[in-house]
Formats: sequence, C-alpha cells, structure tokens
Amino acid sequence: MRLPLPQVEPDATLPDSVTIYEVGPRDGLQNESSVVPAEVKAEFVRRLAGAGLGTIETTSFVDPRWVPQLADAEEVLGLLDEQGRGAQRPVLVPNERGLDRALAAGVGAVAVFGSATETFARKNLNRSVEESLAMFAPVVERARAEGLWVRGYVSMCFGDPWEGPVPVEQVVEVCRRLMDLGCDQLSLGDTIGVGTVGHVHRLLAGLDAVGITVDRVGVHFHDTYGQALSNTLAALREGVTVVDAAAGGLGGCPYAKSATGNLATEDLVWALDGAGVHTGVDLDALVATSAWMAGHLGRPSPSRVVRALTGA
Amino acid sequence: MRLPLPQVEPDATLPDSVTIYEVGPRDGLQNESSVVPAEVKAEFVRRLAGAGLGTIETTSFVDPRWVPQLADAEEVLGLLDEQGRGAQRPVLVPNERGLDRALAAGVGAVAVFGSATETFARKNLNRSVEESLAMFAPVVERARAEGLWVRGYVSMCFGDPWEGPVPVEQVVEVCRRLMDLGCDQLSLGDTIGVGTVGHVHRLLAGLDAVGITVDRVGVHFHDTYGQALSNTLAALREGVTVVDAAAGGLGGCPYAKSATGNLATEDLVWALDGAGVHTGVDLDALVATSAWMAGHLGRPSPSRVVRALTGA
Repeated sequence: MRLPLPQVEPDATLPDSVTIYEVGPRDGLQNESSVVPAEVKAEFVRRLAGAGLGTIETTSFVDPRWVPQLADAEEVLGLLDEQGRGAQRPVLVPNERGLDRALAAGVGAVAVFGSATETFARKNLNRSVEESLAMFAPVVERARAEGLWVRGYVSMCFGDPWEGPVPVEQVVEVCRRLMDLGCDQLSLGDTIGVGTVGHVHRLLAGLDAVGITVDRVGVHFHDTYGQALSNTLAALREGVTVVDAAAGGLGGCPYAKSATGNLATEDLVWALDGAGVHTGVDLDALVATSAWMAGHLGRPSPSRVVRALTGA
Repeated sequence: MRLPLPQVEPDATLPDSVTIYEVGPRDGLQNESSVVPAEVKAEFVRRLAGAGLGTIETTSFVDPRWVPQLADAEEVLGLLDEQGRGAQRPVLVPNERGLDRALAAGVGAVAVFGSATETFARKNLNRSVEESLAMFAPVVERARAEGLWVRGYVSMCFGDPWEGPVPVEQVVEVCRRLMDLGCDQLSLGDTIGVGTVGHVHRLLAGLDAVGITVDRVGVHFHDTYGQALSNTLAALREGVTVVDAAAGGLGGCPYAKSATGNLATEDLVWALDGAGVHTGVDLDALVATSAWMAGHLGRPSPSRVVRALTGA
C-alpha cells in the first residue's frame, strides 16, 4: 500500500522547476564500502533514468588505485546506450589522462573536482589548490574543444575537517578561477555537511558579487549534521535551480563513524513534490530503485523516505 | 577531539531567539520499545536541564495500560526537585483522572493532546474529536484554576495515515476550540512527518486568520520523511519561536518499520547555532546526554549530529 503523499501546497519562495543532478552512481557508490558489479551499476543508471532523473553522473575516471569502487568506468559506460553516455551523463575526470579515457569511452560531459582548501586539495589531489587548477586548465580546454559540457566541483565550501570554517572569500576565489577556465556550471560542495542556512545565503551572495550568478551553480550538501535538505531549500530560495542528490542517500555508510551520505534524492523529491516544484521524478519508481540498490549493498537505505515507504 | 562547529552566519529571516520545548523524556521514551528505569528518566531530565534546555516535558499521566513505558510518572517526578516539577516541566494529562494524579505530584504545567482527525482521535483517545474536546474542557479549566500553565497538542495537523492529507480548515477548527478552552499554547503536530514547507505556511496563515497568532503556537515535526528541520525553519521564518524536539531524535526506533522519531534537538541546535539564533543550549553537553541515553536504550542515536560528533 502506498503511504500518504504530501499535500501539494505551493511555496512561492521556491522555483517552479528544479533540475536534480543525480550523483548516486558516482559520489554515492564511490564512498560505499561494497564494490558493486559493473552490470549492477549500469542497471542502476538505467533505472534512475527510468524514474525520471534527467541528469545522472555515471562514473569516474580517476586512477583505479585511488577509487577501486569505480575502477570499471569503461565497462559501465560500455553497458549503457548512447544516451547513457550523453551530455546528460557526466563523468568525473581529474586530469588529462582521465579525460583521454572519458573521450575514448565516448562521453558527452565531464566534471573536474577542485577544493576550496589547501589541506583537502593535498589530501584528495596530492597538490596545492593552485597546482590543481593548473591540472584542470587543459582538461577543461580540451573538453570544451571536443564539445563536451563541463562542470567544476568545489569541495569544502563551508567547512574543512582540518582547517575549520572556510572563509567565503576563499571559496569565491576558487569558483572564479574555475569559471575562468571555462566551466559551464559549478557545484558548491559542503563535503562534511557542517553548513547552515545563513552560510548558504552569504556564499551565494559572495559569488553573485563577482558575477557568478545562481543560474551557473548547483548545490551539493551532505547530511552529516542533518542540514542537507534545509540548506538546499535555502539555496533554492536564493534562485538556485540545480541540486545534487544521491538516490537512497548513498555515500558513506550511515552506520559507520561520521556518516557522510549525500542528500537523499527521495527526501528532496518529497519536499519539492509537496511544494509543487517540478522535478520530473516519479517518486515510487525512485524508491523502488533505491530499495533494489540497498539490496545489492546489503544494508537499508539511509533515506528517510525510502525507509518510510518500504518499511525498511 | 571536537569536530568543526558551523560558522556563525546570522540569517535575518530567523528570530533572534528560540525556545526549545524538549519532548525526549515524554514523546521520545513513550515511543521507544525499551522501558527505562525511573532513576534513569529523572537523570535524563536533570542532564537535559544541565545542557541548558529550559522547558522539558517530563512524563505522562495516561493510563499505564496504554503507555507502559511511562507508568512510573509519580516515581519520576518524586525523584526530581521542585524545579523539576515546575512551570517549565509540563506533563501530559489526558483526562481528569490524569490531572488528579499530576496535581497530587505537584506539577506546575500540563498538556492535553487532541487530534485534528476523527480516525486518530478514536484510535488514540477512543472517542470522537468532539468527545475528546469535552473531556479536555474540565481538565483545562481546573488546571488553570490551580494556576497551572496549559498546552494543547494537536496531532495529525498535516496528514493522517488513515485519512490522508488533512484540510487546514479542519486543523484550524480544532485549534480554535482548544484555545477557547483556555490553553496557553498550542503545539501543531505533524505526527506522521508528511508535511512540507508550503503546507506549514498555509497552516500558520489559517490560524492567524482566526486570531491564533504565532506567539501562541509551537511546532512539532517528526522526521519520518526527512522534512522535520526544513519544516521547523519554515515555521521560524513565519515568526514561530517555540519548537518541539527530542534529544537524540528519540521516539520511534529508526531501525524499525516506519521510523517516526521526533526532530532531533541536536540537529535543530546545530542549525540555530549556525544561524546565530539563541537557544541557551550547550551542544556538547546535549550530545553527551543523548549518547548516554543511547547507551541505556542499547542502540545508536538517530540524530545525525550525535552520530557525527560521537563517531557512533
């Protein structure tokens, strides 16, 4: 039996329509302890598309030694049809080697991943912020020359586990540099989930002040401190219309130390459905997909909506 | 080591100060499968007060056959000092028999619990909405005559598991009747957690239209669909300044079918601390209290903040 849906009560402070940028297959599975077979990953992408998710980040061309969970990027893409490798199916590429692999696989969109802090740049990319931007420059340039859409992630936009709170000015500077490289869109990541609503407002205002308007940015919140949906809605009230989320709240086991899962796509869709905001997502189909993936991962989904609707 | 705190970024859309109405010892423990000894309950109340929570609902004088978890109401209150039974320590009373017991125990504040829907009134109170209001009338009258502060809960203000979405007009009517009985404050409950932000706005507007202003209401959200904090912040933006929450997100096991925990006090405090909203709560002390209670319940806290800060 389907449990009650939220009553639709339009909220004039929110946009009419939101694009959900689904990161479950990449940011989600990359941070799970289980390694999922390529066929399951491809089927996950197909099911997500079937549930109405228009934009799905499918995999990552990082060095397999760093992220063994996604070592099968070519195999996953090979299992997808042309649309499954198209402009609405970005893949992560850290460097030119990754871009070469992505181009060989026939992708239509890529994303580079920068950091707002020096410490995380060194931990995640083994180089300074400046050096990482230098590494991205030819990637973005060549990707654009090949006609690809390019996204730039910015990690640690709110706080950093080693450096503490991250000044807005520092984040804005990295964003500006990535836009100057030619990124089509930025994704502002609260990688450790510490941000709150006023901080969201000030970061977006800081970006606007240097000409990076809300139509060029997506937001990417992790729910480590329970703030992901609230912060997302705060960003939507400022005019942002692209939101990163992971089906089922994948990414970081919620039963392990320092849960770090992404905002669950279902919890976001519940909120937006209730507010009459169009997403194109069929919540029932999405919940079924996440329940199916939870079976492959061998643990319940951390999404509250998935658990409530499946009785998990 | 203390993990990073949110950077304080005042949000002008939120009030300067919020009163947290802590319901962990009552609404939380009432819905836990474990029965906690009276001394642990009393110590829980003392520790919550020590963490800066000014208002704490301590127990319930319902028939012990209905809620065996709180059958020791007199014993718990007997273990608390005078302040622990005072005007800032309400107890739940369903009827005159419950009020008699509460008065004998020397309490300073009581709460009655009504329902916005007929089905839930019958399931929870074994009578119609009209009959339950008739039952509450002498309770509220006598309580006020004794100088007690009186709160009126309204359950199922957003949706009902049997009736589906609940019309705002129906909720407003029950609220109006409870205020007419003489309640000092109402608590608007989303008992099954289905509400979304636009619905919050419309309910508060509906109440305002009949003269029930935001200074007379608290909000009470359950996190079943992950909406509790977002809905709470939506209510605060409308001018509400009283928020119900349960330390550690107690109330309904998150690992069982249809998780129904309350908004976790810690997740609320994290959001309000970050926005510079005064609550008087010491988050470290509160997290330590919830971790201690999780030990007594034999399971991790469902609060994201508690889990992140304790590594549970």
